[in-house]
Amino acid sequence: MKVQTHRLTYQTRGFSHVLDITEDVKKILESSPVRSGNLTLFVVGSTAAISTIEYEPGLVEDIQGALEKIAPLKGQYAHHQRWHDDNGSAHIRATLMGPSLTVPFAEGELFLGTWQQIVLLDFDTRPREREVVVQVIGVE
Amino acid sequence: MKVQTHRLTYQTRGFSHVLDITEDVKKILESSPVRSGNLTLFVVGSTAAISTIEYEPGLVEDIQGALEKIAPLKGQYAHHQRWHDDNGSAHIRATLMGPSLTVPFAEGELFLGTWQQIVLLDFDTRPREREVVVQVIGVE
Amino acid sequence: MKVQTHRLTYQTRGFSHVLDITEDVKKILESSPVRSGNLTLFVVGSTAAISTIEYEPGLVEDIQGALEKIAPLKGQYAHHQRWHDDNGSAHIRATLMGPSLTVPFAEGELFLGTWQQIVLLDFDTRPREREVVVQVIGVE
Repeated sequence: MKVQTHRLTYQTRGFSHVLDITEDVKKILESSPVRSGNLTLFVVGSTAAISTIEYEPGLVEDIQGALEKIAPLKGQYAHHQRWHDDNGSAHIRATLMGPSLTVPFAEGELFLGTWQQIVLLDFDTRPREREVVVQVIGVE
Repeated sequence: MKVQTHRLTYQTRGFSHVLDITEDVKKILESSPVRSGNLTLFVVGSTAAISTIEYEPGLVEDIQGALEKIAPLKGQYAHHQRWHDDNGSAHIRATLMGPSLTVPFAEGELFLGTWQQIVLLDFDTRPREREVVVQVIGVE
Repeated sequence: MKVQTHRLTYQTRGFSHVLDITEDVKKILESSPVRSGNLTLFVVGSTAAISTIEYEPGLVEDIQGALEKIAPLKGQYAHHQRWHDDNGSAHIRATLMGPSLTVPFAEGELFLGTWQQIVLLDFDTRPREREVVVQVIGVE
């Protein structure tokens, strides 16, 4: 059994910037001797999330619209009053979606659908450098 | 340490069809020599999700109602305009809920509550054949 | 490879009580010989969830407000009619957020951000004793 820790770094724009990170994740797995197991993604920080989506500009716009309804950017947040901050919507979106995703693999291949991409969503209200931890656990 | 990959296949109706898959998952664990570890479920595709619920018809109706408010079936989606598709609501619901769930177990028993069932939710707008990957990782 | 199963128990107030459990989780990892791997949290029951948040009173209030919009405490639920129960909102919030979270670690340290705490959210409509399973899987 092996545990391999990798880190991916992204320059993000914030404001629900959605980045397709599937190819970077696949490259990590291709370079690994681990053939069967789980690949866990975890984004460090409390204003971003990881999920899967069919990555096309229409759906990126649609997920941004749905999150804007759930936690509007210009909404009223106690977080703003207490910390004179402006990213309450970012925190709420991140907590609802969650920072982590686990994708199983076998024979060196992730079990993703053809139109199912792994995405990093950055909800913060400014550009950020984001770190995604990719933990590979399994057997050769 | 062992990694065991199983696949479950379901015929689904779509339109937020909620299927209780707990018994199938338990059977996999019962037939496995792995006694302690994690069981990860992952649904292949971008219009379905995995979660837990107290599986009774009332709550199935309630979760369908809550998701209809968040991403209405007949809402306006950029995905529809770009791809002449009609399942934008399905994609949004799936991305918000996530395709994956990890349930720990020990002494061959999943740590589920008595009224906590594992469910597959299919949001697509047509019947589908769905594949759920069940990855068992742990020790004998 | 080692699998270690721990249990944390909390007295909760319900009504979207949000508890910061980060220190308890870190203590488990500090006392473990496992140095690299994944730590999976799973809350037993169908009316609670696990996620991360910047734990400060403003954001606790904000996440409670967002969930109240998504699944209002005093809303109409088929679950109430069928079971003469009053916690339909709790079930819906729990199913949407999910009962599980996986956090990778290396060299004995969780990959959490400085302002990213692990939280247990109890949505039920009465005080509860809650069990959170903490499964540590990895190598020494």
